[in-house]
Amino acid sequence: MDYHEEFEKRREQIFADYFTFLRFPSIATDPAHAKDVEACADWLYEYMKGIGLQVELWRGKGAPTLFGSDLRAGPSCETVLLYGHYDVQPVDPLELWDSPPFEPTLRKGAIYARGAVDDKGQVFYALAAIRALLEKHRTLPFNLKVLIEGEEESGSTHLGELLSSKKAELKADHLLLVDGGLPEPHTPAIILGCRGIVTMTVTLTAAKGDMHSGTHGGIALNPNRALAQLLATLHTAKGRVAIPHFYDHVAPLTEEEMQKYHLEFNPLVYQEQFGAEPLGMEEGFSPLESSWLRPTLEINGISGGYQGPGFKTVIPARAEAKLSCRLVPSQDPEQIGDLVKKYLFANVPKGVNLKVEIHPGLGKPFRTSSLSRIASVMQEAYTEIFHKPCKRILAGGSIPIAVELAEAAEAEMLLIGTGLITDQIHAPNEHFEVARFKQGFLVLCNALERLGAKTKV
Amino acid sequence: MDYHEEFEKRREQIFADYFTFLRFPSIATDPAHAKDVEACADWLYEYMKGIGLQVELWRGKGAPTLFGSDLRAGPSCETVLLYGHYDVQPVDPLELWDSPPFEPTLRKGAIYARGAVDDKGQVFYALAAIRALLEKHRTLPFNLKVLIEGEEESGSTHLGELLSSKKAELKADHLLLVDGGLPEPHTPAIILGCRGIVTMTVTLTAAKGDMHSGTHGGIALNPNRALAQLLATLHTAKGRVAIPHFYDHVAPLTEEEMQKYHLEFNPLVYQEQFGAEPLGMEEGFSPLESSWLRPTLEINGISGGYQGPGFKTVIPARAEAKLSCRLVPSQDPEQIGDLVKKYLFANVPKGVNLKVEIHPGLGKPFRTSSLSRIASVMQEAYTEIFHKPCKRILAGGSIPIAVELAEAAEAEMLLIGTGLITDQIHAPNEHFEVARFKQGFLVLCNALERLGAKTKV
Repeated sequence: MDYHEEFEKRREQIFADYFTFLRFPSIATDPAHAKDVEACADWLYEYMKGIGLQVELWRGKGAPTLFGSDLRAGPSCETVLLYGHYDVQPVDPLELWDSPPFEPTLRKGAIYARGAVDDKGQVFYALAAIRALLEKHRTLPFNLKVLIEGEEESGSTHLGELLSSKKAELKADHLLLVDGGLPEPHTPAIILGCRGIVTMTVTLTAAKGDMHSGTHGGIALNPNRALAQLLATLHTAKGRVAIPHFYDHVAPLTEEEMQKYHLEFNPLVYQEQFGAEPLGMEEGFSPLESSWLRPTLEINGISGGYQGPGFKTVIPARAEAKLSCRLVPSQDPEQIGDLVKKYLFANVPKGVNLKVEIHPGLGKPFRTSSLSRIASVMQEAYTEIFHKPCKRILAGGSIPIAVELAEAAEAEMLLIGTGLITDQIHAPNEHFEVARFKQGFLVLCNALERLGAKTKV
Repeated sequence: MDYHEEFEKRREQIFADYFTFLRFPSIATDPAHAKDVEACADWLYEYMKGIGLQVELWRGKGAPTLFGSDLRAGPSCETVLLYGHYDVQPVDPLELWDSPPFEPTLRKGAIYARGAVDDKGQVFYALAAIRALLEKHRTLPFNLKVLIEGEEESGSTHLGELLSSKKAELKADHLLLVDGGLPEPHTPAIILGCRGIVTMTVTLTAAKGDMHSGTHGGIALNPNRALAQLLATLHTAKGRVAIPHFYDHVAPLTEEEMQKYHLEFNPLVYQEQFGAEPLGMEEGFSPLESSWLRPTLEINGISGGYQGPGFKTVIPARAEAKLSCRLVPSQDPEQIGDLVKKYLFANVPKGVNLKVEIHPGLGKPFRTSSLSRIASVMQEAYTEIFHKPCKRILAGGSIPIAVELAEAAEAEMLLIGTGLITDQIHAPNEHFEVARFKQGFLVLCNALERLGAKTKV
């Protein structure tokens, strides 16, 4: 069976279903969308059943988790667990979208929608691949498990609580996280690690309420000024995080790492793609070293006082910042969160009240081996489909549940996907080229076909 | 005639009309309220006519200006020009109001509404005083002019353009700006100066759009970080503005000034009133020296990236700040605006695009004499009504049109009023005690009764 032909034969149905999936505004981080998240999970449950999987809907405190399986190959055969998520990022600023985020639109060979790639698109080519495999084989030559959660974008907090009670269901030889990307178009790659993450909201307050900046200017402390002064101390002039002990557990880069990963980076292409020079690196590191192999601290949001058109002469009662750290082995998110918090308390200007809320959904950094069975299988599949040698890369982003999930499943883990840095994930006009959706489908079909009886070791 | 009795007799009507005036959402800075501003001006026109004034509605580009007069006393008598404004500040954050801002509510002896004090309340006791005077005297023993504008809160830009063509109408001996306050309850004072003002919006941009902070963190410059770093350089550790030449034209404090102004300040009372210690002073200056006699630079607003509940891992495309400087003699608002702008351009981190928009509505600082005829008249009136000696103070705020208006009218200027620092002007729950509204009425009646034939000099 030629999966290319299979895809083309079913193209219309695949995209009709993919569009239906994209139309659910499954923004799990926003309580206002709780019903949409449920509706999306219900739809997915029926869809997975419809393609021939045994499906369970796991309900805990948060968004439901879908668990599908086909275990007819039996214990002598390899078991693969695929992971993805159906929740999506918020859509604001809405006015920057060229078409409505939950009305998928095909333009110039790409699907535009929130979740087009991350991760509904990648989940959906995986389900399409599973459907094709199930139709080809009366019985799959391997055991298949599929876990699709609904809280990845908010830290997978509730799935984390479920894992220990679901170890038997999750047990697998291989864990494929289908939420990754390619280093550039037409260049296949497996992803051997992610950065960890810890996020927090920092609030500074002073007076009881907003105050007139004429009458109080020169008397009252201004939380906006205090916030700017505090945030300005977080980095050194060389772009390092200035918090003591932040780098204590960060291993220096090795020659082996430099050789192993595809660290090539074209600043001109980056500037063309994103409209700005790559100038945010830690001094002494190349862009991809800085993004993959070094931790960062970003100010994801700041707010305080009047922000509308025109002017309002106010000294605000409060100012707020959203901070996140991306972490590398062997930094512990909880420990780093505490370090940042302590630093903020030690450095906040006198007279300002500080509150630091570390959000749940800490994510541990990880590295996986390029020599595992699943890494070999995926490299072979990528090379065959792309007609090019498969690179090895890392991801600057995070998959919060990855490490715990691999531990619960006792599986070798690998992150894969056919997303691109230019897909605008988490931003307005997220889009997925149809051709890359199909590449994802073909690579997964090819890779899963390689699984079968366990080799004795 | 006893003005106290007169007030009590007419109390019900005065408050009914004052409430009607307060119900117009005359937020001139917000184009969405243009019709409300017009309606408020039309109502005021009829009201002023109704109490017996000759009224003109001056229309220019912005909100209309009301000009009322009674010149029957003739050229041998003194002429006083009263100034106030009917536009009000925006009301956000709306959720912090205990009653709707445009539905005036009487609670514990105070009227709660946007504009209750600033400046509709003060304008309205002035109109009530004029009405009482007009009813007492068949012909007023002095000439009266009243100018009520609609753009004070946004810098009086359009009134400024009108002044040169209205010099004949505005010509007066005395200019009373009825938009000021008392240093504390039961302490009468005349206000011998205001700080000037210049405001600006500062925008930093980097990439074309918002970016994923995992993928781009370590590669992309973050405008939030750049903004914090830039803003943190605006002040020294001693609370001085760090911009070169900012203080070039600021005269040192003199012993005479220290003696002249009522500079007493109780930090415990301040903390009780506003919930925060007074800690925003320039080092070496007391709170009121810092607020009245020294210039300041405040960050009135900051924004960039995600500001909602929860978290979004974004590196924003832009970050913004609203800055204002309050100025003292002999700082020039235009020159200071340019200084700040130049400084920002010289210090913005490399790779970030900077835009600085200086808003129209610059206001010049001023000082007036305590020895003028109008200062004497007002001090006598205050002392008589409050049964206490009248203090001399300054204001940390600004009345943008003041200097130009005094020049156009060729009048001696004085700022007066019965507002208090605790009235929450420009903030949620603005309110005016009925007792202070009445004090304002009585003081103005008393003062205006003292005007009459010009004394030959």
